[in-house]
Amino acid sequence: MVETFGQRLQERIRALGPLCVGIDPSAVLLDAWGRPDSIEGLEFFSLAVLEAAVGSAAAVKPQVAYFERFGSAGYRVLERLITDARDADILVIADAKRGDIGVTNDAYAAAWLDESSPLCVDAVTLSPFTGVGSLAPFFARCVEGRGVFVLAATSNDEGRTIQRARTDRDEAVEDHVLRLVAEMNQHDEGLGALGVVLGATRDRPRFDLAQLGGPYLVPGVGAQGATPEQVGRLFERCPDGTVLVNVARAILDSGPERSALRDAVRRWRDNLTTFL
Amino acid sequence: MVETFGQRLQERIRALGPLCVGIDPSAVLLDAWGRPDSIEGLEFFSLAVLEAAVGSAAAVKPQVAYFERFGSAGYRVLERLITDARDADILVIADAKRGDIGVTNDAYAAAWLDESSPLCVDAVTLSPFTGVGSLAPFFARCVEGRGVFVLAATSNDEGRTIQRARTDRDEAVEDHVLRLVAEMNQHDEGLGALGVVLGATRDRPRFDLAQLGGPYLVPGVGAQGATPEQVGRLFERCPDGTVLVNVARAILDSGPERSALRDAVRRWRDNLTTFL
Repeated sequence: MVETFGQRLQERIRALGPLCVGIDPSAVLLDAWGRPDSIEGLEFFSLAVLEAAVGSAAAVKPQVAYFERFGSAGYRVLERLITDARDADILVIADAKRGDIGVTNDAYAAAWLDESSPLCVDAVTLSPFTGVGSLAPFFARCVEGRGVFVLAATSNDEGRTIQRARTDRDEAVEDHVLRLVAEMNQHDEGLGALGVVLGATRDRPRFDLAQLGGPYLVPGVGAQGATPEQVGRLFERCPDGTVLVNVARAILDSGPERSALRDAVRRWRDNLTTFL
Repeated sequence: MVETFGQRLQERIRALGPLCVGIDPSAVLLDAWGRPDSIEGLEFFSLAVLEAAVGSAAAVKPQVAYFERFGSAGYRVLERLITDARDADILVIADAKRGDIGVTNDAYAAAWLDESSPLCVDAVTLSPFTGVGSLAPFFARCVEGRGVFVLAATSNDEGRTIQRARTDRDEAVEDHVLRLVAEMNQHDEGLGALGVVLGATRDRPRFDLAQLGGPYLVPGVGAQGATPEQVGRLFERCPDGTVLVNVARAILDSGPERSALRDAVRRWRDNLTTFL
């Protein structure tokens, strides 16, 4: 029987710890690294971070926006990064936050989760503004080890107004997303393929986080202000190996020197492992 | 003084009518056109629809998902389409529904609205799940005639749960988006640069649609079920030239024969003009 994405990720977390390294080649970071804000800079940065993450992190998370700003040439670099990561046997989560009506989501799902696509990754982040149900074409593709992370509560303050608005059932939008994803995960044996993004900077939702039946992707740690202890408390009752913590700037600031980057990756991995 | 995007669009609508032609090169439509589901098919389809739209439609709206499914090669076709549209002097709205936290939105905004980007278009669609405030980097770039359309109410049924959830102010999310966009448009003289996506298949929001101070992009007409009369009623009190109606499949089904495509574009333009 083929493992679900949740099971694959859980094995990586148990073996390597709960760290996901964010690959955010922003103009600001390229400048701090003394590299040009160009395709060459983008490629150097991305592959250096990948190399530092391999062997110490469960996954890498390229932020698609930083590649898209260079158009098709930036996407070629993203394709190279995805191929190299696959060769290095590290999981790739594309932080794309895609979401549209159903018929369009079928094309986005093909882009990110179909084996034949040059952008095919292990998992992709999704935005549910058009409705959790509209994301069905992605859920249908969460087979053969592929998965998704649906936004429930993002790490930024401005996210609260909509994410905590109350639905017809008098449920906060974030709880609505968590509940629907949990219901769908019940079809999978063991840990399911459908995950949720839950910012470490946010208050605990009403939904019992231990009941998701799938993995969490947790932004907001490090430069955005949340500590590993806070993450440990927020998810304290969740099963082992279900919480993946993204750290980007707090690691990326230590580049471009490779040994410094590697040290930062290991330090964050060890620090997170203490609390998760 | 430089015109806003709203003013530019208004002039086009007054001169050419309120039609936006959706460019949706889906696998299904390529097959119906007898074209391969490949880069070649994608390019043929996109440029044929552009040609049919020029002179009879105010704008074209490529759906980015259908290009992204081919990765960087698909984005090269999108770049070609954008360049050709600019040469033909027709407005381009990238239907990307991008949206992330603020620092990331700065990179997405650079991708779609910076003159130096190969993907630079006249306007881009945005998803506000991370908060309307998080979209500030896009709003800051709505100068020199560029604009955005923020999702308020999408054309699909599944969108209602979140888009009609109630915020802390006991306001529906769709009304919250409309109100915040209207407030920002007050800074512009005449019609502002910030638009909203409002599906023609949806009930009238509580917000007074005549008060937006910017343009509407209206999906849901034709194959999705809404009629030009319904659009006319929904926006009956809005100022002249502020409502842009997207029609995709109902036109695209008439391809690939060029004169049939052109006829369909004109028929829809005339039909919409009767009611708007």
